[in-house]
Amino acid sequence: MSDHSISKATLGRLPEYLRLLKSIEKEHQTISATVIAKYLGFGEVQVRKDLGAVSGKGKPKIGYVTSELIERLEYCLGRNNLCQVVIVGAGKLGRALLDYQGFSDYGLEIVAAFDLAVDDVTFSESGKPIYPMREFEGFCYKCDIKIGVITVPKSAAQEICDLMVKNNISAIWNFAPEILHVPDNVVVQQENLALSLAYLNQ
Amino acid sequence: MSDHSISKATLGRLPEYLRLLKSIEKEHQTISATVIAKYLGFGEVQVRKDLGAVSGKGKPKIGYVTSELIERLEYCLGRNNLCQVVIVGAGKLGRALLDYQGFSDYGLEIVAAFDLAVDDVTFSESGKPIYPMREFEGFCYKCDIKIGVITVPKSAAQEICDLMVKNNISAIWNFAPEILHVPDNVVVQQENLALSLAYLNQ
Repeated sequence: MSDHSISKATLGRLPEYLRLLKSIEKEHQTISATVIAKYLGFGEVQVRKDLGAVSGKGKPKIGYVTSELIERLEYCLGRNNLCQVVIVGAGKLGRALLDYQGFSDYGLEIVAAFDLAVDDVTFSESGKPIYPMREFEGFCYKCDIKIGVITVPKSAAQEICDLMVKNNISAIWNFAPEILHVPDNVVVQQENLALSLAYLNQ
Repeated sequence: MSDHSISKATLGRLPEYLRLLKSIEKEHQTISATVIAKYLGFGEVQVRKDLGAVSGKGKPKIGYVTSELIERLEYCLGRNNLCQVVIVGAGKLGRALLDYQGFSDYGLEIVAAFDLAVDDVTFSESGKPIYPMREFEGFCYKCDIKIGVITVPKSAAQEICDLMVKNNISAIWNFAPEILHVPDNVVVQQENLALSLAYLNQ
């Protein structure tokens, strides 16, 4: 993905648009925001705004050329350029993420996990490899990994973060309840599951 | 928790304040925002704002009475009134949440999971019960459950949601990639893990 102007809310809906358009591409060579809104049960204003961010305004009376819109959606979702991601920490949460199918919708694939407690490579339920930590450096280098997920306990999080940074990972998704210190060129997204649930309770 | 005026960002920091104050209560019977900021490495402006939302302004030259501030934080975090939560769907993610320790920081406890594939009660690693679905109704009634977590596949999500609503659950945290339809008096928080990771990649 390379377009910073798309909001998180819009991004969240793009896979739905893409799925719809692919399923009706044969019947609709062109399609309007109105028709798309009806198919998906979304508001028309929202659809116009979402598609506007992705592909500009449609043509008057015609709307969008379906194949072009599909291409733009695939580009925005990084489908043509699958980004490989690694996880450190193969506990329950790490394994759940490793086997979660939904990331490919966004051009992302979690390709492997690493864990201190693993001595030899093992495999997750869906067949993805879980390597010992000593394989981490070589793997990141070989696959040019840019995104890392941290699902280790709080006490180990900063150390793993440092290791990721040292191996040229520039975006970190952190599930450990620990504020990570990183250089300016590295982005951290802090995931606080407890807080999400707590906020629901307000 | 009962105070809607606290932002999610502030709420996320409250457990840190509480931990700190409890650890230094003996040495500091009163404490200023400046001192708290130094201990935690937070900005002073942020600390003033956070504590202001929780407990009003401190007294000039003195700051806050530590024991009173602890009391206010505990109130805001619902510590005196633990809220019980149930999960439906005891796959990897459901089990990871069931055994996650961090919810108690926010006055929440996931007390049990339910799963269609379970015939007799089993137990998670941390010893929490996983019941067959037929126990759901009785359990919710007996424990007066108000919050439910959905970690079932997309295809089953609406059905489970309906069941929760029928059993007086009024707040739902949904991990299934499905837009849930609920009555106006029910709150749904949609968790989209794929989207969080995707946004990091922008």
